[in-house]
Amino acid sequence: MKRHIDEELDKLNTDLLKMATLTEQAIHRSVEALKNKDTELALAVIEGDKQIDRLELIIDEMAIDLLALYQPMAIDLRFITTAMKINAEIERIADLSVNISQRVLEIADRPLLKPIAEIITLSAIARKMVRDSIDAFVNRDKKLAKEVILTDPSANQLRTSIQRELIYEYMVKDGNTAPQGVPMLLVVRHLERMCDHATNIAEDVIYMVQAKFVKHTAFPRGDSTG
Amino acid sequence: MKRHIDEELDKLNTDLLKMATLTEQAIHRSVEALKNKDTELALAVIEGDKQIDRLELIIDEMAIDLLALYQPMAIDLRFITTAMKINAEIERIADLSVNISQRVLEIADRPLLKPIAEIITLSAIARKMVRDSIDAFVNRDKKLAKEVILTDPSANQLRTSIQRELIYEYMVKDGNTAPQGVPMLLVVRHLERMCDHATNIAEDVIYMVQAKFVKHTAFPRGDSTG
Repeated sequence: MKRHIDEELDKLNTDLLKMATLTEQAIHRSVEALKNKDTELALAVIEGDKQIDRLELIIDEMAIDLLALYQPMAIDLRFITTAMKINAEIERIADLSVNISQRVLEIADRPLLKPIAEIITLSAIARKMVRDSIDAFVNRDKKLAKEVILTDPSANQLRTSIQRELIYEYMVKDGNTAPQGVPMLLVVRHLERMCDHATNIAEDVIYMVQAKFVKHTAFPRGDSTG
Repeated sequence: MKRHIDEELDKLNTDLLKMATLTEQAIHRSVEALKNKDTELALAVIEGDKQIDRLELIIDEMAIDLLALYQPMAIDLRFITTAMKINAEIERIADLSVNISQRVLEIADRPLLKPIAEIITLSAIARKMVRDSIDAFVNRDKKLAKEVILTDPSANQLRTSIQRELIYEYMVKDGNTAPQGVPMLLVVRHLERMCDHATNIAEDVIYMVQAKFVKHTAFPRGDSTG
């Protein structure tokens, strides 16, 4: 027999998925806005973030209500506390799309530098990591979560190489490229942080599934090359 | 009569304070390392972060155990879920000290640019905001939490002005300053993100105290000027 709490947990899942879909769209649209220097689209991403913020609050309240009403044990408790964490991570990923859109507004009147091509590659990796990490949560898929974690170092490498190129091939050789070089470099870091949040989600999923910490232990990550 | 859960909640408080103290030290030391280009101190901050990471895990486990064992209601439930959030925020602030230390390693063999003075001012604001936000949590001090939130815009302004100076007064005028100008600019953003996390903590405190959301509503914030 299906318990009443299961229906509520399904609703929590559904709302998290809705938030994840909106966030993925925000990533995609912010990078499109950058590629085409489309300030209207950038403004739409910034405006659209309000909806994601509202969803975060709704999900958070729903989770706390579930804790209060059902006083769940073991796996349900772990699922709800993990959902609360993932909720916060997704909201931050959405904020990073807003940050990318803000960079678009800053550089709209300047020519993009060539590494925009690699930035778009990095954005595709970031989107896939975000998508996969959330799918891993919804399907309790430990294997997929591990794949996300293993993708992070290559995203880091790409980030580092784009940064070097922007600094040494552009800004050092011609200081006049700095006003667009710096925002592009910041976009690279916004994308890299999306990857870090996806990694956090994947770690939370693995922990939830095996109730054993991988965070800060099994997989080294971070920004030491940057 | 003191309930058994109160002792456990006190312990949660104590551990959060311990983590906050270590994090404040990490901020201070990372900025000292930058000021003096002290790579040994920078490496010590990076190494010391492991202890903060371990504390985060311990606090998180303690909170989930409290939820499972006592099935707390109302104010206790709200306190525990808020502690979990603040725990995550503090851990991220500590990570940002690691990021600053990584920047120190990158620029250790180059001369610092003059805006280092304003960066140190910004770091003092960031530390105060972090300290105050955690004090506000421990003492359930809504007034102090509001002060933290009201400080954020001035931190944002300072951040923007340092960034402009680094780009237009240094990198544009002499591209050869970019290899240290970019890491210094990133330090400014790391500090600004600390302020954002302190603001998140302050918002969580206000919400906990009045059980009403201020997040994403009452106080505009973010990075739109950056």
